[in-house]
Amino acid sequence: MEGKMKVAVMLGVGKMGFEERDIPKAKDDEVLVKLEYVGICGSDLHYYETGAIGDYVVKPPFVLGHEPGGTVVEVGKNVKHLKVGDRVALEPGKTCGHCEFCKTGRYNLCPDVVFFATPPVDGVFQEYVAHEADLCFKLPDNVSTLEGALIEPLAVGFHAAIQGEAHLGQRAVVMGAGCIGLVSMMALKARGVSEVYVVDIMEKRLEKALELGATGVINGAKEDVLERVKELTGGAGMDLVIETAGTEITTRQAIHMAKKGSNIVLVGYSKSGEMTLPMSLVLDKELTFKTVFRYRHIYPMAIDAVAAGKVNLKGIVTDVFGLDEAQKAMDYSVNNKADIVKAVIRIAE
Amino acid sequence: MEGKMKVAVMLGVGKMGFEERDIPKAKDDEVLVKLEYVGICGSDLHYYETGAIGDYVVKPPFVLGHEPGGTVVEVGKNVKHLKVGDRVALEPGKTCGHCEFCKTGRYNLCPDVVFFATPPVDGVFQEYVAHEADLCFKLPDNVSTLEGALIEPLAVGFHAAIQGEAHLGQRAVVMGAGCIGLVSMMALKARGVSEVYVVDIMEKRLEKALELGATGVINGAKEDVLERVKELTGGAGMDLVIETAGTEITTRQAIHMAKKGSNIVLVGYSKSGEMTLPMSLVLDKELTFKTVFRYRHIYPMAIDAVAAGKVNLKGIVTDVFGLDEAQKAMDYSVNNKADIVKAVIRIAE
Amino acid sequence: MEGKMKVAVMLGVGKMGFEERDIPKAKDDEVLVKLEYVGICGSDLHYYETGAIGDYVVKPPFVLGHEPGGTVVEVGKNVKHLKVGDRVALEPGKTCGHCEFCKTGRYNLCPDVVFFATPPVDGVFQEYVAHEADLCFKLPDNVSTLEGALIEPLAVGFHAAIQGEAHLGQRAVVMGAGCIGLVSMMALKARGVSEVYVVDIMEKRLEKALELGATGVINGAKEDVLERVKELTGGAGMDLVIETAGTEITTRQAIHMAKKGSNIVLVGYSKSGEMTLPMSLVLDKELTFKTVFRYRHIYPMAIDAVAAGKVNLKGIVTDVFGLDEAQKAMDYSVNNKADIVKAVIRIAE
Amino acid sequence: MEGKMKVAVMLGVGKMGFEERDIPKAKDDEVLVKLEYVGICGSDLHYYETGAIGDYVVKPPFVLGHEPGGTVVEVGKNVKHLKVGDRVALEPGKTCGHCEFCKTGRYNLCPDVVFFATPPVDGVFQEYVAHEADLCFKLPDNVSTLEGALIEPLAVGFHAAIQGEAHLGQRAVVMGAGCIGLVSMMALKARGVSEVYVVDIMEKRLEKALELGATGVINGAKEDVLERVKELTGGAGMDLVIETAGTEITTRQAIHMAKKGSNIVLVGYSKSGEMTLPMSLVLDKELTFKTVFRYRHIYPMAIDAVAAGKVNLKGIVTDVFGLDEAQKAMDYSVNNKADIVKAVIRIAE
Repeated sequence: MEGKMKVAVMLGVGKMGFEERDIPKAKDDEVLVKLEYVGICGSDLHYYETGAIGDYVVKPPFVLGHEPGGTVVEVGKNVKHLKVGDRVALEPGKTCGHCEFCKTGRYNLCPDVVFFATPPVDGVFQEYVAHEADLCFKLPDNVSTLEGALIEPLAVGFHAAIQGEAHLGQRAVVMGAGCIGLVSMMALKARGVSEVYVVDIMEKRLEKALELGATGVINGAKEDVLERVKELTGGAGMDLVIETAGTEITTRQAIHMAKKGSNIVLVGYSKSGEMTLPMSLVLDKELTFKTVFRYRHIYPMAIDAVAAGKVNLKGIVTDVFGLDEAQKAMDYSVNNKADIVKAVIRIAE
Repeated sequence: MEGKMKVAVMLGVGKMGFEERDIPKAKDDEVLVKLEYVGICGSDLHYYETGAIGDYVVKPPFVLGHEPGGTVVEVGKNVKHLKVGDRVALEPGKTCGHCEFCKTGRYNLCPDVVFFATPPVDGVFQEYVAHEADLCFKLPDNVSTLEGALIEPLAVGFHAAIQGEAHLGQRAVVMGAGCIGLVSMMALKARGVSEVYVVDIMEKRLEKALELGATGVINGAKEDVLERVKELTGGAGMDLVIETAGTEITTRQAIHMAKKGSNIVLVGYSKSGEMTLPMSLVLDKELTFKTVFRYRHIYPMAIDAVAAGKVNLKGIVTDVFGLDEAQKAMDYSVNNKADIVKAVIRIAE
Repeated sequence: MEGKMKVAVMLGVGKMGFEERDIPKAKDDEVLVKLEYVGICGSDLHYYETGAIGDYVVKPPFVLGHEPGGTVVEVGKNVKHLKVGDRVALEPGKTCGHCEFCKTGRYNLCPDVVFFATPPVDGVFQEYVAHEADLCFKLPDNVSTLEGALIEPLAVGFHAAIQGEAHLGQRAVVMGAGCIGLVSMMALKARGVSEVYVVDIMEKRLEKALELGATGVINGAKEDVLERVKELTGGAGMDLVIETAGTEITTRQAIHMAKKGSNIVLVGYSKSGEMTLPMSLVLDKELTFKTVFRYRHIYPMAIDAVAAGKVNLKGIVTDVFGLDEAQKAMDYSVNNKADIVKAVIRIAE
Repeated sequence: MEGKMKVAVMLGVGKMGFEERDIPKAKDDEVLVKLEYVGICGSDLHYYETGAIGDYVVKPPFVLGHEPGGTVVEVGKNVKHLKVGDRVALEPGKTCGHCEFCKTGRYNLCPDVVFFATPPVDGVFQEYVAHEADLCFKLPDNVSTLEGALIEPLAVGFHAAIQGEAHLGQRAVVMGAGCIGLVSMMALKARGVSEVYVVDIMEKRLEKALELGATGVINGAKEDVLERVKELTGGAGMDLVIETAGTEITTRQAIHMAKKGSNIVLVGYSKSGEMTLPMSLVLDKELTFKTVFRYRHIYPMAIDAVAAGKVNLKGIVTDVFGLDEAQKAMDYSVNNKADIVKAVIRIAE
């Protein structure tokens, strides 16, 4: 497909703009995708507000966005499993295939990954992208490209559930009811976990959690979280805790509420990167800390779960902006963090 | 067996004495063991120095010691697998058999465990003990009762190795070259780990580590530990780290030196119980923290490993005292922590 | 509780009768349960028809029945978690707690198990039974004692699902749509398996499978099972196969339809005990055979699943008989195997 | 490197010859290896004797041999980890990197694998080969290229040990003392298995097993294998059985001798592809059958084990032939199967 496309670019901290770029061509192993929806992630906002995450520093003009869904419009000559017109969710990280991590199936740890919107690699707040066909997963008829875009955050939730070995018969808690907390809760439910409680301090988020299927919620600003857990479990503690809030206080609570011998899955990053934790208690209870860095092997399963109605992925979307509104979308998202669960950019219908 | 026996008792902080007590009788499921050696553990010293560990408070007279080896002198009527004259290692914790943890094979987490030398349960610095026959493991001819006594600390090392999924082909580090560090190193070697490096700041301990089979040692007081690990692993990081030192600094080093996606096993308790750790780095590397609380299902395997010459258990013994020297044994141990790897009380030959 | 109770006894092959026996007393760790429903299992029918299963030979008068549900009417003095009036499902096997298998949490392999209706141990086609309180699991308000009785076969289905590591995102097949096939199918669904197909040769059973939630069914008498699987999986093969039919033909089909590297769970016993299988193909595909002997650690999870509406356990019941009708119940069951999914004896309401 | 090289080719069933071919060039991701030793595998003999294995049919001229060791003489421009002069072991299978199996780290199941000496892909009974650098593993100074060649069969043994979850504290049996049986035995020992017994019916092979480190041997032609196992295990059965003989009789013995709940690893292919097995006993004992198709992720670990002296890989070599003697090597191997453990072709020193 010849021609130009519109690209929303970050021009500097707090400043968005637009560029016209050539529509890319699909290489032999790639497909060209006309994007329809791209989610706005917390990391996009962080780059936008501060210009960097750790060692990853934005050099403008830079394209944000790594949660894309769209429709295939061109197919590379080696591609067998996709055709023009297929609607797809795009897994954003292309890995080397050769390192120890790729070879052993843990490709999310590949040191040479090329990941959308991670400097210096551009993201996809734009009209088209050419992407590895292997990383484009066909959506069934009853899954929209909006949902396709949101498979990315859902994948984090599923990876957390899998890292924690979540299963039927457990009672679990998710700390934090932001986007990742909510998708983690839904992932636990989809894997059969019997009871999933969500803890947050914002009533609105907790209402959302209940609406999306949480067994119960605990408002940490109003209730004694550990006391409530004690009541809920008859003192035995929770079989599994997923920590998505990224605060020391919730991580400490996770340690106190976990049953002896159980798993705590750490998903949320703390601001400073450091936490002071009661590690002797962790030993006394023989707890395991599992952690989550992105995800692996999740897309097909997550798409299945959405198609089967096990995850209400549309339900997390609170705000939709047009591509033209990129500046507004970013500013609004930064200024209304408490109210937004998930904002997305609609590139095209 | 009728009669009296000598018991060394802790009369108060820093004060040992003796009592004469009745020799206990073996119940139907028990054997009576004439003790020959009992190891002195760090926890014994901690009770001796401070009178308590956490909520466990010594009420004198109290009997310390939970690392016993001896010879069966009487056999309960239901006991099939042992006979008078068998030399045995005694696993010190008797568990309920009915709770969720016992039923699922994780009996070390049983909340109703009765464990030697954990207040208010007396230990075994004494001449005889009646103990569950199921917890008395027969020693083969080429394993002495001195080694039998030391199966207990070795079991911690093996549990650490198993929690960490230690296996052939790995490069591992053990932080700390005290008793538990050394038995962990030997457990890793026995499980086939190819290279095991030991880190400590006392040269004497590191020499001991080399003597007992460490592939190499790193003196953290003289060398940059992380630089050395980088050299040893070509920058890839260690496949497994066992942390036995219980300090924040070594735990932080463990996090930095671990390869992405690997296991860190936490064994050492910190003094304050708290640690400040770079948790975001833990997430970025998708590390797993496994922890160790005592051990489970280890005795037969550990005895086998000693019998097969895979673990030089005698080699960790630095000091032997008589039962009459209980006061001296405890005082010397408290005052010479840097020099002692393992002190034992010889009850009888 | 003093008094007499009615007991249905097997007096010989094909011959039932009744006895009056003393109502048993609950020992300190037991509860006395007034039974309400007891399921009739294939093994009961086998003993009734032939007098033996392998080395287990019935010596009349013998009490059949090992799938009981009822209400607690007396509580031993050590029992804490149950009280009079609690409705319970009874796990039928009492294990030693001391052997290697019990200690490592695999109590279903305990060689000294005492299991209802396994000669010479009587079963529970009777009005009352005194049973280990630890093996009596309280039913929530929305689970009936009829369902409580059927937790036993459901437990086999869950154990099969767990042995096969069934999880969300898989496509699975259950070979056989008898009672165990159907509960296996429901167990897979409850654990989140996306698509579960059931294969049988009787249309009536396949209709039942669909009614109870199977994604699809295949009639092996009318369709080419392997061709259908090929279509359903795009040639890739099934992620998991549960074999409950116990025939060579279905086991061979299982091997052919399984995806490379996948698990086949063998649940069904063959008549002769022997099977001729294409083992080289098993190697070429690097398949794993997991097997099922009874179950372990399943009751609480299974009760949860029923309470949560994840398993329609009532739906498997096709026939209900009174205790007085024991002869008729057994004869009818033997003579109508094709039509019966699950028959139960109602002891009391 | 320009020039010609000598290639031993199979010209038909039972007929070897030679060709001169161009020395291949290393592509960017490849290295050119001057071969020094290539092992002769049972599959080479099978192709040589019959012209086919299953659907894989030899179309002459065809090059046999897939167990190579040699020295790097040319390095592709993208290759970082190897240099001219490095001695290497070559893993013979190049996989696609994109399929479900490759992505999840089970590349040995890749349907698009290109594997040396598997028709129509030529093997390496020749002087040079250009091969993926990622599949060439550097040998340490104390591992010879002869041993490098034999890493391939050893990898099968290690994969068997890993599939069986072999570990310290177990008692294991290897059925069959051919090349794969012996390397399996050594792999078990290297992974720490305490006692490994080997069963065969040829005294000479059993002597070899003892020489290479077996704990004990059982001659199935002279002794009652199951009785001996009963004695050795006090009736408990073996913790792990590796079946490499590929016969029904040994597989049946494996089932009988395995402890309840244990793993049997099937490695040996039967001649007919079919076996009649006591599957009800497999269920009663809740055994698991694991299987082995080639191997994955083994080379570095296997090389380490040889370098560390844990595996006496040289010890399995019974016969060495020159490349010029290809005809003789094959004929002799075919005619002396009972006497040969491992024959190798020396291509160059």
